[in-house]
Amino acid sequence: MILQTGYEARMAIRKEDWTAPTPGLAPGYTQANLVILPKEYALDFFLFCQRNPKPCPVLDVTDPGSFQTVLFAKDGDVRTDIPRYRIYRDGVLEKEVLNIKDYWRDDLVAFLIGCSFSFENALTEAGVPIRHIEENVNVPMYITNIETIPGGMFSGPMVVSMRPIPADQVDLAVKITGMLPQVHGAPVHIGDPKEIGITDINNPDFGDAVTIKDGEVPVFWACGVTPQAAIMKVKPSFVITHAPGYMMIGDILDKELMIRC
Amino acid sequence: MILQTGYEARMAIRKEDWTAPTPGLAPGYTQANLVILPKEYALDFFLFCQRNPKPCPVLDVTDPGSFQTVLFAKDGDVRTDIPRYRIYRDGVLEKEVLNIKDYWRDDLVAFLIGCSFSFENALTEAGVPIRHIEENVNVPMYITNIETIPGGMFSGPMVVSMRPIPADQVDLAVKITGMLPQVHGAPVHIGDPKEIGITDINNPDFGDAVTIKDGEVPVFWACGVTPQAAIMKVKPSFVITHAPGYMMIGDILDKELMIRC
Repeated sequence: MILQTGYEARMAIRKEDWTAPTPGLAPGYTQANLVILPKEYALDFFLFCQRNPKPCPVLDVTDPGSFQTVLFAKDGDVRTDIPRYRIYRDGVLEKEVLNIKDYWRDDLVAFLIGCSFSFENALTEAGVPIRHIEENVNVPMYITNIETIPGGMFSGPMVVSMRPIPADQVDLAVKITGMLPQVHGAPVHIGDPKEIGITDINNPDFGDAVTIKDGEVPVFWACGVTPQAAIMKVKPSFVITHAPGYMMIGDILDKELMIRC
Repeated sequence: MILQTGYEARMAIRKEDWTAPTPGLAPGYTQANLVILPKEYALDFFLFCQRNPKPCPVLDVTDPGSFQTVLFAKDGDVRTDIPRYRIYRDGVLEKEVLNIKDYWRDDLVAFLIGCSFSFENALTEAGVPIRHIEENVNVPMYITNIETIPGGMFSGPMVVSMRPIPADQVDLAVKITGMLPQVHGAPVHIGDPKEIGITDINNPDFGDAVTIKDGEVPVFWACGVTPQAAIMKVKPSFVITHAPGYMMIGDILDKELMIRC
């Protein structure tokens, strides 16, 4: 199946011709995390994101009750355009489904949040190695002692992802990701994991440990698990998210997210 | 009175020792527009701003019912830290007041929105002339044929401000304001006013006409009057704004808003 554009990928996913994870699909097009909440939680969550743009870079928000994306994808439908969703009630995972047409309600608001795939593509193109891709595992993620700024009912520690970077490429990695503020931006910490409350770098809270070679520095970026953790702490009556690795693909190119001065 | 920092200015304004307009106060500190709406309108207005960041660059939003700023100023109080407010009911101006302590309600949400003062300072420092300042009048503003992206109940045309720039400094003006996305960013139009629906450049919809000299190009920036016009079209039951020229002063420096790659 040739799915080269974001539009082609969304249409195949909408028809459930594509039900697998999305990495590698429609190369160059931006992929996003999805969080859907009832309206009663939406303003507070929007505040939380606005105050914490590094872990929660908002790419698009739907009108209350509308399942159509506005900025992220033309005619994007958040009910069908992701291959696999998770339904939560009162903070508990109820099930995974291929579409949420039967779950849609008039009070739901969908948030599309930038994802690290975009900056990993930019790093790869610049010749910076991405260890968890090389080792074919999930990126290691850690709960830190960095507190987010609370927004309404939402609060909690920042979760970070870690990539070991050769010491002579750290400045390049900082520069490239700093030019991508809508997909987590520059690192939040470089070097000693203990300074941000990580006691064992080989034992991540989420994802998998990766090899840190001699001459490499652990570099930490704000991670999209942060808003998910803040939401689950509140245990909202109803939440829908994408299933990990099954993202929404937009019409925006990763290159378009890069700020140029 | 020596009011050099944002904090000193806010404290003098809070005590009503300073009740005059704010331009020139606490030089270098960011000044912001204020819009306060009941919670029932807040999510839609937040959506409108998120979709139209050039006319509506959000610097800070308060928690519902809270009068304290979060990102813009330490211990900032939106009820007292502006010298003059406007109270609107059902879209009609009711009165101007020096503080809104008697008007505060538990359902209000305050939005602080970036203001062109910040980019005018940056242009002046780079040697780009600002005609309306030279001529000591208000900046000319025009309703255009550029439509904003609607957000919930809010919609309407983009309002722009115009500054005549010497032809050989237009690129500099674009570059400098482009580095300030949180205070309207790069121009939305350069040159022929008719292309954006302005029929008579000497007859602005708001503010005052200014001289355009030979060799100067009219340059148009998205203007903070855009969200005010979108709000007034809806005629919300209750709105509070700053009075024109009486802004809130933050702890952020204009220089800190400049993105650097």
